[in-house]
Amino acid sequence: MKTLTKNEREKLDRRYRAKLINSLSGFKSVNLIATKSEKSSNLSIISSAFHLGADPALMGFIIRPDSVVRGTLKNLRKNGICTLNHAHSNIVEQAHQTSARYPENVSEFEQVKLNEEYLDGFEIPFVKESKIKFSLKMLREIVIQENGTHMIICEIQNIYYPKDVLLEDGSIDIHKAETLTVSGLDTYFETTKIGKLSYAKPDKDLEWL
Amino acid sequence: MKTLTKNEREKLDRRYRAKLINSLSGFKSVNLIATKSEKSSNLSIISSAFHLGADPALMGFIIRPDSVVRGTLKNLRKNGICTLNHAHSNIVEQAHQTSARYPENVSEFEQVKLNEEYLDGFEIPFVKESKIKFSLKMLREIVIQENGTHMIICEIQNIYYPKDVLLEDGSIDIHKAETLTVSGLDTYFETTKIGKLSYAKPDKDLEWL
Repeated sequence: MKTLTKNEREKLDRRYRAKLINSLSGFKSVNLIATKSEKSSNLSIISSAFHLGADPALMGFIIRPDSVVRGTLKNLRKNGICTLNHAHSNIVEQAHQTSARYPENVSEFEQVKLNEEYLDGFEIPFVKESKIKFSLKMLREIVIQENGTHMIICEIQNIYYPKDVLLEDGSIDIHKAETLTVSGLDTYFETTKIGKLSYAKPDKDLEWL
Repeated sequence: MKTLTKNEREKLDRRYRAKLINSLSGFKSVNLIATKSEKSSNLSIISSAFHLGADPALMGFIIRPDSVVRGTLKNLRKNGICTLNHAHSNIVEQAHQTSARYPENVSEFEQVKLNEEYLDGFEIPFVKESKIKFSLKMLREIVIQENGTHMIICEIQNIYYPKDVLLEDGSIDIHKAETLTVSGLDTYFETTKIGKLSYAKPDKDLEWL
């Protein structure tokens, strides 16, 4: 086992250190966030979306104002709505390409050749190629003063999914939908199911369901 | 494609809805968080840890005060330190079993048969069986008033990893370390690498590295 102390880490090259730290939390979600400015739709890959609570149905994500996602933050502040669209194996290259620094009034949908899809009157497009997607309403922005990032809290609105991925217990089989996971900023993975474990109780053996 | 509107969702059974919402963000990280009270060490599986920034090296996670992790929150508030330990394939059952509601003064390490490991004078134990692990110092607690959860912001201290998982660019190969990912609260997955994509630039083709 190797040790890297805080002091040793702080002396490392900035980019090397960034990659190291970014892989530490574990596997991350891979979503495409769509927003709209007056001039164009915008689409950006985001690996920071996380479950915040089911009742009310909340999701959080982190935006770095100095990153290519800054357009997304601007749009969100203006109209307070966005869509999140799971990235899956067949669109991994297009999804990654949205992280390129395109000019603000250019639509990443057009640049990476993903199609806009408007559903049920929501003003922000979804990604047509995405299988699992949902609309979000922004509730609040929290500034993380420790590093100048912004945490966005949203409430989930409408949800769209292929009918064969909804399981009996209500959960969505994101593995079957080929939803990706990512480590760091650039290494993508598919998943292999180990299984589902029973609800854990003291003094009761777990079962694989 | 099926649609579930916000109105339809709110009429669903509470548990069914919780499972649905919990699978929407995508794949989640699987860590074991260790803390210490005056009476015992505590260990709990946590799927909400997320990367918050590399410089300074920050990590965030969400704690629900009414959940079994409430002991963890209490301990953190008292001494402000914890360890995070990646869960991997060989310890998936023990990791899941830590989510059982044991009495507060009982050590989940003992109950699920994972070993405590003290490293470099840090007062909180690591999980000996875990391959990738790090110590954390709590910086701040943010109350998410929308649902009464607590977001904890921590700074990464020392990092421990097997020497064969550190890649040339500084990132840690968490796939090689068999780090797990989870969907919802109970369905565990291993990963299969698709590949690493080059840094995206406008008008430049991506390469698989």
